[in-house]
Amino acid sequence: MSLTHTATTLWHHARIASLHGSEPWGWLEDGAMLTRGEHIIWCGPRTELPAEHKQSITQEVDFDGALVTPGLVDCHTHLVYGGDRAAEFEMRLQGASYEQIAQAGGGIRSSVAATRAASEATLLAGATRRARSLMAEGVTTIEIKSGYGLSLEDEARCLRVARTLGVRLPLSVRTTYLGAHAVPPEFAGRNDEYVDAVCAWMPELHARGLVDAVDAFCETIGFTPAQTRSVFEAARALGLPVKLHAEQLSDQGGAGLAAEFGALSCDHLEHLSDAGIRAMQAAGTVAVLLPGAYYFLRETKLPPIDALRAHGVPMAIATDHNPGTSPGLSMLLMLNMACTLFRLTPEEALRGATVHGARALGLHDRGTLAAGQRADFCVWDLDHPRELAYWFGHNPCRRTIVGGLERTL
Amino acid sequence: MSLTHTATTLWHHARIASLHGSEPWGWLEDGAMLTRGEHIIWCGPRTELPAEHKQSITQEVDFDGALVTPGLVDCHTHLVYGGDRAAEFEMRLQGASYEQIAQAGGGIRSSVAATRAASEATLLAGATRRARSLMAEGVTTIEIKSGYGLSLEDEARCLRVARTLGVRLPLSVRTTYLGAHAVPPEFAGRNDEYVDAVCAWMPELHARGLVDAVDAFCETIGFTPAQTRSVFEAARALGLPVKLHAEQLSDQGGAGLAAEFGALSCDHLEHLSDAGIRAMQAAGTVAVLLPGAYYFLRETKLPPIDALRAHGVPMAIATDHNPGTSPGLSMLLMLNMACTLFRLTPEEALRGATVHGARALGLHDRGTLAAGQRADFCVWDLDHPRELAYWFGHNPCRRTIVGGLERTL
Ligand SMILES: [Zn+2]
Ligand SMILES: [Zn+2]
Repeated sequence: MSLTHTATTLWHHARIASLHGSEPWGWLEDGAMLTRGEHIIWCGPRTELPAEHKQSITQEVDFDGALVTPGLVDCHTHLVYGGDRAAEFEMRLQGASYEQIAQAGGGIRSSVAATRAASEATLLAGATRRARSLMAEGVTTIEIKSGYGLSLEDEARCLRVARTLGVRLPLSVRTTYLGAHAVPPEFAGRNDEYVDAVCAWMPELHARGLVDAVDAFCETIGFTPAQTRSVFEAARALGLPVKLHAEQLSDQGGAGLAAEFGALSCDHLEHLSDAGIRAMQAAGTVAVLLPGAYYFLRETKLPPIDALRAHGVPMAIATDHNPGTSPGLSMLLMLNMACTLFRLTPEEALRGATVHGARALGLHDRGTLAAGQRADFCVWDLDHPRELAYWFGHNPCRRTIVGGLERTL
Repeated sequence: MSLTHTATTLWHHARIASLHGSEPWGWLEDGAMLTRGEHIIWCGPRTELPAEHKQSITQEVDFDGALVTPGLVDCHTHLVYGGDRAAEFEMRLQGASYEQIAQAGGGIRSSVAATRAASEATLLAGATRRARSLMAEGVTTIEIKSGYGLSLEDEARCLRVARTLGVRLPLSVRTTYLGAHAVPPEFAGRNDEYVDAVCAWMPELHARGLVDAVDAFCETIGFTPAQTRSVFEAARALGLPVKLHAEQLSDQGGAGLAAEFGALSCDHLEHLSDAGIRAMQAAGTVAVLLPGAYYFLRETKLPPIDALRAHGVPMAIATDHNPGTSPGLSMLLMLNMACTLFRLTPEEALRGATVHGARALGLHDRGTLAAGQRADFCVWDLDHPRELAYWFGHNPCRRTIVGGLERTL
């Protein structure tokens, strides 16, 4: 099959979990979609395709009864970095203390040093390999944060690599500036000065077209709420949306602060308070759950899933891929972990990996299959969408269509 | 590259984790292997290749510095079954009670019904798909248990499917008769009579060449130690080795019983006692750890890893793939879970997925790379073998060689 991008294509004989409308899964038993260019112009039961559309069809694709869902969205990753932390992982399992690991050059500082030492080509090669691993399972949109450069030019380099990925690969990439990820060695003991620098670099990075959103790590071992507020004010001055690594290890009131700035999302949230939940609900902020980090860090405190559900706060799930606390590269495994560890239902998990993930990025043109949405969707070797969350360590993705075009890896 | 099976092949320029000898990982920085037919005839540092071997080389393969390990062994699976349990998984997450699930036809009985209802071709197709998923990550030897047929002919059918897999796919398959997995509906309330039937079917299944080992599920919700003993005595009468699902949910003294019969392995072992450990050590029984089931069931009691290590009991790891309690299909994820959840070191995890897994199947001709061993090995897109356990949800397997021949999937 070879499709041209200007064609009007009917994709039919599909069993579609559209995630649109009020039916469970937005289910269409004998579904069809009509796409033109990058977008869906109609989606519904095949027998209801309007007559005026029939005449415009230039190509047809028969899915032979296969399951179709929206393309997956990974809305929280730290995909661009140098080196890895496998040696540190091994040392810890061999019984080394955190002090011994720090002495051996471990921890986030080792990733910063390796990132700064790597060429842009090396950073791009590593991120490309990792992006392909996610794409093989049907990921069509991904967010990538900086945060291992921690100087103007090193942050710029990482964000440029992220932008390049979006150009070179059949994948939508959204970039997030996370200068406030950690304090680099040259600013040791001068955290406020480093935050001033993070804010000062922001207009320059934005002017270069490298920033879609701004994030910070608000935590006892990260940045204070006051420092986070400075970063958010700098973002607001530029009209940039914000997100926050909030309440992962303790309740810092970060969710309330982020909501005050109309944050797109608060992420992690194991220690989120009721007040934080209400603030997020009022602000329309998405709760991004990261079960891979919860698993890898052997956390025992769960995010307040029932309360988020009760308050109608949309829950997204993402990989949080990073070399230190979540070296995982599978959104499907995150669906299983969201169910197994966090007790989401399979439908909540799939919505979290599609429409709510998109919303956490401020994107309203994807994550469901309906007229006007992007033609990003996956074909699966499965009978029912709940199986996406049931099997684990298995890749049933048969085909992926991005912006109306079939993707080959 | 096309290799004939009678060639003498030099595989060189490899960084080999041979798992042979006393060095960590059995590491060979500039390693080479010479294979003839299905076996390795020499493995060592490239510069030490004996002169007499050099003349016999008919083909050379340059691995370009890539990482090579033994092929992976998945020594505990229930790969052959009809249907799946995704609906039950979803019901539970939607809040259904066990009673409601049982009323809706859930639980192991639903797998037995679906297995009995499925054609042999359907069973083979499902098991083939699942085996390919494991093979894609470098699995070269797999154990497959029966236990969803629970009648003579249904157990025979499942074991025949397992045998067929080993013939059709480039994969070694070992079969295990697990008639004592559950009591089928037609024997409800007559557990002892069912155990008599399991024992009575054994000679017939063995005569048909379908049984490499015999297993049982010794548990309060399974079979008693006395019933397990009956099964083991029937196996002993036929000269068949035994294994046991032991101390998963409670301490039944199963490990001690199994050791009395010189069991190849005891599997699960979350509730294993010190006496059980000593009995296993004395009998040379392998401890098979199943972190996927531990994860999926959200268990909190860990197997006694430190004590097993202190007593020198070899620890294997496996997927325990089954539709009810471990629908996972990734040995690499089991390596990560063995480290993350059970705190094995990456080297212990890899030995558990190779040489100790082989030993749990009574196989001494695989699991390390050394003269006399089978030429089953994998080439990885990784710098160091510890990365096999560090990344998760990622498949870096580049090539797999089985019995000296490259495998294509
Ligand atoms: Zn993060
Ligand atoms: Zn089992």
